[in-house]
Amino acid sequence: MITILFIGDVVGEPGRTALKHALPGLREAHGADFVVVNGENAAAGRGITPRLAQELLQAGVDVITTGDHVWDQVELAPWLNTEPRVLRPVNYPEGTPGHGSVVKETPKGKVAVMQVQGRSFIQPPLENPFLISEKEAQRLRNEEHVRVILVDMHAETTSEKISTGYNLDGLVSAVIGTHTHVQTADETILEHGTAYLTDAGMCGPAVGVLGRELEPILKRFRTSMPAKFPVAGWPVRLCGAVIRVDEETGKALNITRISQIVEKPAS
Amino acid sequence: MITILFIGDVVGEPGRTALKHALPGLREAHGADFVVVNGENAAAGRGITPRLAQELLQAGVDVITTGDHVWDQVELAPWLNTEPRVLRPVNYPEGTPGHGSVVKETPKGKVAVMQVQGRSFIQPPLENPFLISEKEAQRLRNEEHVRVILVDMHAETTSEKISTGYNLDGLVSAVIGTHTHVQTADETILEHGTAYLTDAGMCGPAVGVLGRELEPILKRFRTSMPAKFPVAGWPVRLCGAVIRVDEETGKALNITRISQIVEKPAS
Amino acid sequence: MITILFIGDVVGEPGRTALKHALPGLREAHGADFVVVNGENAAAGRGITPRLAQELLQAGVDVITTGDHVWDQVELAPWLNTEPRVLRPVNYPEGTPGHGSVVKETPKGKVAVMQVQGRSFIQPPLENPFLISEKEAQRLRNEEHVRVILVDMHAETTSEKISTGYNLDGLVSAVIGTHTHVQTADETILEHGTAYLTDAGMCGPAVGVLGRELEPILKRFRTSMPAKFPVAGWPVRLCGAVIRVDEETGKALNITRISQIVEKPAS
Amino acid sequence: MITILFIGDVVGEPGRTALKHALPGLREAHGADFVVVNGENAAAGRGITPRLAQELLQAGVDVITTGDHVWDQVELAPWLNTEPRVLRPVNYPEGTPGHGSVVKETPKGKVAVMQVQGRSFIQPPLENPFLISEKEAQRLRNEEHVRVILVDMHAETTSEKISTGYNLDGLVSAVIGTHTHVQTADETILEHGTAYLTDAGMCGPAVGVLGRELEPILKRFRTSMPAKFPVAGWPVRLCGAVIRVDEETGKALNITRISQIVEKPAS
Ligand SMILES: [Fe+2]
Ligand SMILES: [Fe+2]
Ligand SMILES: [Fe+2]
Ligand SMILES: [Fe+2]
Ligand SMILES: [Fe+2]
Ligand SMILES: [Fe+2]
Ligand SMILES: [Fe+2]
Ligand SMILES: [Fe+2]
Repeated sequence: MITILFIGDVVGEPGRTALKHALPGLREAHGADFVVVNGENAAAGRGITPRLAQELLQAGVDVITTGDHVWDQVELAPWLNTEPRVLRPVNYPEGTPGHGSVVKETPKGKVAVMQVQGRSFIQPPLENPFLISEKEAQRLRNEEHVRVILVDMHAETTSEKISTGYNLDGLVSAVIGTHTHVQTADETILEHGTAYLTDAGMCGPAVGVLGRELEPILKRFRTSMPAKFPVAGWPVRLCGAVIRVDEETGKALNITRISQIVEKPAS
Repeated sequence: MITILFIGDVVGEPGRTALKHALPGLREAHGADFVVVNGENAAAGRGITPRLAQELLQAGVDVITTGDHVWDQVELAPWLNTEPRVLRPVNYPEGTPGHGSVVKETPKGKVAVMQVQGRSFIQPPLENPFLISEKEAQRLRNEEHVRVILVDMHAETTSEKISTGYNLDGLVSAVIGTHTHVQTADETILEHGTAYLTDAGMCGPAVGVLGRELEPILKRFRTSMPAKFPVAGWPVRLCGAVIRVDEETGKALNITRISQIVEKPAS
Repeated sequence: MITILFIGDVVGEPGRTALKHALPGLREAHGADFVVVNGENAAAGRGITPRLAQELLQAGVDVITTGDHVWDQVELAPWLNTEPRVLRPVNYPEGTPGHGSVVKETPKGKVAVMQVQGRSFIQPPLENPFLISEKEAQRLRNEEHVRVILVDMHAETTSEKISTGYNLDGLVSAVIGTHTHVQTADETILEHGTAYLTDAGMCGPAVGVLGRELEPILKRFRTSMPAKFPVAGWPVRLCGAVIRVDEETGKALNITRISQIVEKPAS
Repeated sequence: MITILFIGDVVGEPGRTALKHALPGLREAHGADFVVVNGENAAAGRGITPRLAQELLQAGVDVITTGDHVWDQVELAPWLNTEPRVLRPVNYPEGTPGHGSVVKETPKGKVAVMQVQGRSFIQPPLENPFLISEKEAQRLRNEEHVRVILVDMHAETTSEKISTGYNLDGLVSAVIGTHTHVQTADETILEHGTAYLTDAGMCGPAVGVLGRELEPILKRFRTSMPAKFPVAGWPVRLCGAVIRVDEETGKALNITRISQIVEKPAS
């Protein structure tokens, strides 16, 4: 059995600090062999820089996924080709900087992570997420001989996420949704052995809106006028899931949600 | 203390049957004084008819909310003016058939229910949900002297729902989201006493996509071609929340999620 | 020189009748060698049936393009594989019924027509229109040795249409936009010889909204409530463009807009 | 008769310079009594500053309208309350800085200008444009006793613009669309005397995409990656319309489109 810890969208400095602070304990508590984190909001809510990505990797994260915010920090794109452990969605056109999947050797065998992005109510328009993620899963299985495959499905709508779970059921070990920053309560193991959760939730400021301060967002909704949306402060709600997988078959054995408050560490 | 049972979007015949079948037990198990159900998908997934609404009311539902599917069944609009217990979103323009809120007398005092619809990634465009729901909450408090107010926030995005929760915090007893059909795991009581949940989840077929059959939806996502989306079959997942409110102050005391499988009753 | 007559979205029975009635005169007046018509609204505003397509082809139309309404009439999809002169957008996934381009022999040599659909504010999500239409234009030139190529760019936004014109400039003879039903006044020949017009306009009822009756549409905008949108009546505004192309080089020599009223023919 | 010159979205420094350079000649050529300009892209494509607005007013513009870019320059909002000749859309909530309409005295009587913004495929969500613009037109007629009223309808879709024209037909002298930056060829006078044009077109760089440089926009469409979109250079295409109105009745007598190239003035 291999145990994968997945943490949803890390938001800003509080999210990064909370993650780094909590990771050793989480790893031990859950017996995690492999850690995947969505880092698309790590840089003050807008993308992630190479330096911040390196910090997370050094803190014990094995693979970082991103999403629609992947290009928010301009220095990321050229750097992505040099760091295969940081992913962008696989359904960009050929020739796009970076990679949509990665295979890592672990003491318990190969583990692959793939990210795919939806097309309903999310920008930019990308290529068909269903056909491409299925093809890539088959390539990972047939050419790379990987059985343990985790997919981060970054999308807005529940229908596109759930359908991706079913579409990849039996081909991958887990499909975990990200992007809405709110954890859903629908964790399950699908018929053919794929663990599924519509949204992992975020790792970001607990009070406010999706990790950001309330007041500017409320003002915008009330007035239809623009505002800046700074990342809010402590405490942090750290959300994610632990997925246990039979490493021989790639079938998920169990999926458990995580959602806990992390207080600001004494410095 | 008054206990309100809220059930999310009821989908099709299986959803209706499961609800009617489970309601007496739920009511007893939770000591519910008042039952609110979102019925926007009751009629084969598309809106609700007067007859189906009456069936739910006769089965013990006190108030039915709807949402973006409210007008799917053409006979509903003229009937809405005759049945104040079936709501449409309050932020339609003046002169729209039906009502966006209702006040009911109960043995424990007045209970109001309001529905409001978001404007992010949901059609049709309506009037400002923040300003209008706040104004209506104030009217219910000041003119109708209601303290126990439950709001169904029907919206797509987590940000619009969470912001509505904060916007009405202290003015209403609960803001419960609907529309995505997937229950979220973020139930909380906000600072000023409003119970909040981003989405209650649905009461509809457990296998498939949001209560509908998987295959046509998967085909559509894979091919970009249209399809019909029939309601799926049994068993049903019945989702919702129980909110306990201090009827003197209108403050929420507790919110608990409900999510259970209902098997097809032997007929 | 080869002269191509392009007519925009034909709407309903009035649009079809006006087109058939006016076509001989238009053909003669402009010396048209080849006629392309967008037929996506021919069947009461919603798609086109095989029978209606055959009528237009028999009336002298050489190629019919469609758009986002292509699948509105369910009998069209299976028939499309049998009739290469009726196109659907080229940027559907592989395996989609029908074709996105066609090459026809004419007395003045080969003429190709391609249709591509945008991705901004138009459904369903399709594959990258820029990369795919460019690749297909290159294939038509290199493998089919066609020089005269007309592209119907079916899209909502001016930016996506104009950018498609520039992207294909020099590769094709003309890029003509459709879908908005309102003719634009920006006809031009781009630097490398491609004729361009953002929207050809429609061939449909002149009074009303985009070929449909005014009252239901106005009611919908005013009330946010649904309505049916029947096709309006006579007279018809017939819009399009005449493009003259050097058949040796495929370069456009001239583009002229057409917009005229067609009165109901005496029957 | 009163003659109104309307110029569409002025884009960046080339647009502003071309407008100021061409305005005296245009005014004389058309005998314009009143000049209205859409300035939402005047500041490097993003909104307009108070200083740039003052420059245009000093150059002879009577009223400046804006649109979805109105708040792009943060110093504009507080200044709008001090300058009634610069409008923002009328269908913002009460309490929004600035005004949605203005009445000016001229030697030929009062002239009113109103701006309204659509809700289809354009952000942010605003209040009902149909109900609010109609009510405001009635107020201008009944309370301000204005007969000559020009409306700038800033919207993406042709259907919402055309429907606004019909909705206000007979209440106002002209409804002129803006926002798409491409002039349409459908100028007309509606049944009850309102001049109508779906889009006036822009006053901005002629080569490129909607006044911006081609390459970054093309790269974005091809790669789905972000880019900055600088305003392009000379020459400028200046687009708009001349509307002649009976100042006694407010009925439009004539509408003529303007579209001309302005070369960079020798400095
Ligand atoms: Fe995201
Ligand atoms: Fe995120
Ligand atoms: Fe809904
Ligand atoms: Fe629903
Ligand atoms: Fe279309
Ligand atoms: Fe059309
Ligand atoms: Fe605009
Ligand atoms: Fe503009």
